[in-house]
This record gives sequence, structure tokens and C-alpha cells, in this order.
Amino acid sequence: MKYQIITISRQFGSGGRTIGKKLAEQLGIPCYDQELLEMIAEESGMSKEYVKKSGEETVRTGPLSFLLEDRTYDTPATQDWVWEGQKKVIEDLANKGPCVIVGRCADHILWYRNDVLRVLIHADDDKRAKRIVEVYGEREESPEKRVKEKDKRRAAYYKKYTKKDWGIAADYHISLDSGDLGIDTCVDILAHAYTYQPPVREE
Amino acid sequence: MKYQIITISRQFGSGGRTIGKKLAEQLGIPCYDQELLEMIAEESGMSKEYVKKSGEETVRTGPLSFLLEDRTYDTPATQDWVWEGQKKVIEDLANKGPCVIVGRCADHILWYRNDVLRVLIHADDDKRAKRIVEVYGEREESPEKRVKEKDKRRAAYYKKYTKKDWGIAADYHISLDSGDLGIDTCVDILAHAYTYQPPVREE
Repeated sequence: MKYQIITISRQFGSGGRTIGKKLAEQLGIPCYDQELLEMIAEESGMSKEYVKKSGEETVRTGPLSFLLEDRTYDTPATQDWVWEGQKKVIEDLANKGPCVIVGRCADHILWYRNDVLRVLIHADDDKRAKRIVEVYGEREESPEKRVKEKDKRRAAYYKKYTKKDWGIAADYHISLDSGDLGIDTCVDILAHAYTYQPPVREE
Repeated sequence: MKYQIITISRQFGSGGRTIGKKLAEQLGIPCYDQELLEMIAEESGMSKEYVKKSGEETVRTGPLSFLLEDRTYDTPATQDWVWEGQKKVIEDLANKGPCVIVGRCADHILWYRNDVLRVLIHADDDKRAKRIVEVYGEREESPEKRVKEKDKRRAAYYKKYTKKDWGIAADYHISLDSGDLGIDTCVDILAHAYTYQPPVREE
């Protein structure tokens, strides 16, 4: 098999996590998503809540908005510390064998390996807005605004640690529109790409 | 079937044309690629050579480079005229029934239809440089430079007529790295996505 590891980068509300779980189940390999938070917390010595928060950049929404933020731990140094822990956790998981890793810039962290299938899952804003209400429920903010803000925060985090813009097709082997194709078709395509690949020739 | 038309946008040297031809053959539907040039020439009344050239923006390579260009027909008005012919040809082809259309901004021209599977084929620069020598032979310019210049010209043309940056994953339903996945795997994935889609519910 050419690919061992599958990394899934995903827009908020695109169903990337569900695709990762279903894909891993179909392939009979582990999927790391929320589990990563605990592992990174343990590795970095920070709380799971802080690890979760540090995976997105704070985007200022107003000139005095920083007064409302909890900045107990939040310094550039602690975020970098979490990043180092995150790198170690993801590299160790990849070394253990075939798996699916969702989010946390795993595509970039494992860029040096040539057995990684890098996947991006995206969908139109309106479909994602509808989905997050179904999955996470209503909030005070409109789902459209929640989608836009999450996009901004994740793109800013990605840019900070990878120096790249987020969502460029050339950075992934497969990018799929889950809103149009549907979750199950995406799982099917990815399982197909992972398993039906030409065998690597020994030279 | 949800999708009727497949548009393939492709980076120069990525094998997008070959993928389109093989895919159409496998699906038993027509593929329009070079054939488009003749149709657009007839529709717009311009020469096939001009139509081909007008599908890419001229990128100035030096302060006096315009002196070397053949600008017999090349005014903004004639390029727009070709664009209008191109729109009509592509819309007519899509109305005729299932087909694969390669290049010429067909993804953007048919944006208003909801039965179009929009595909982007890309590959790393070095793999594309290698491929263009195999397919088109050696030229005076290095293959690396040819790849870079074509990318620039196509992106500039795309931007001019669509107002969008070229290569953003969110603009396509499926984006594939043909260099890493291989031509045949790409054909396989696309045939799979086109045929194994959930049926449209009549409401």
C-alpha cells in the first residue's frame, strides 16, 4: 500500500470529522480526532480546554474585545509549547501504523512523509450553517456568523504555524465538497483512493 | 443521476486532458477538449490559432517584450468576443447531454447549473515538468520555466473572466493530485463519484 496515514483537514461544519470516523471504521484503522486533545494536553502539560482553544487563533472582533477574553495561559509561548506537543503526538501516532488523523495541521506536520494521503473536506457556507445547527444546536450567534468566524480563526492558526494560506487545492491529494457530494460518497471515494492504489514497485 | 456534465480544470502538465479522455471513454460519453477550439473559432469567427492563444493571458516577461508579440488581432475586444463565443459553445454542449469538458473556464461558465461535477487536476511542479517533456518534447526554455509561465498565464486569464483566484479547493467538488495518485486512480475516483451518487429525490 502506498498510503498508510490519512490526514483530514476540514472546514467547520463540513462533516469532516464524521467522514474521518466512518472512513476509519470502513478501513478497520483507528481515527484520532477529539482523542488528540487529551494526548496533546498530556504531552504539553496544558489543560485539554486550553489545547482545544489554542487550535484556533483569536480573531479580534472589536477594539476592546481583548478585555473579554480569558488570557490566563494565553501567551505566544504557551501556544508554541502546545504546538510542539502536538507535533510529537501526531508524529508518534503516524509511526505506530495506519490511521486517520482529523485536524490539528496533521497534513503539515507529516509533510515530510510520503505515505500520507492529505485530504481536505469543504462545503458551501449555507450547507455548513445548516449542518452545525443540526449537530451542535442553536447558539446566540447566527450559524452563518459562527461558520465565518471559525473559518477565520482556523485559517489564521494554519497560516501562523504553516506559513501557508488555507484551502489551496495544490496542498492536498484529494479535496472534496461534502455538501454537494454527500458524506457517504466522500467516505466511499476516500476508501477507494486509499485501497485501490497501484502497488509501490520495489526498486 | 445527479451529475450530467463533468468540467475538468487542470494545471499544465498535470495530465488533466488524458484523465478527461479516459474518463469519458469509461463512461461512454463525449469529451470536448481540442474540439472546443474549432467550435469556438466557428462561433466567434476568429482563427483556431487565435482562439487557442486567447485562452491564456499574455504575461510580460520584460519591459520591451511586447515588441516581440504578434498582436495582429489581440485587442481586449477580440478576446471578449472569443469569450462570448466560448460561453455559447459550452452552454450548447451542456444542453445536449452528458459530456466531459476540459479547460476554457467551463466550470465558471456552467456555474448556474446544478448537474455539473466541477473537477480540478493538479500536480507538483517537478512532476509536471517531467511530464511535459515526455508529452510535448524538449523546447528551448526549461520545462520548469514553461510550467511556471503557463500557470501564470492561465491564472491571469481565469482571474480576468471569473474574478476569482485559480486553484481554490472550495470552487470545485473534487480536486485531485494526479502526480501522487496517478492518472488511472484519478479516472477511477471520478468515474466512481459520477456514477455512485445517491439518487436525486423527486420532491
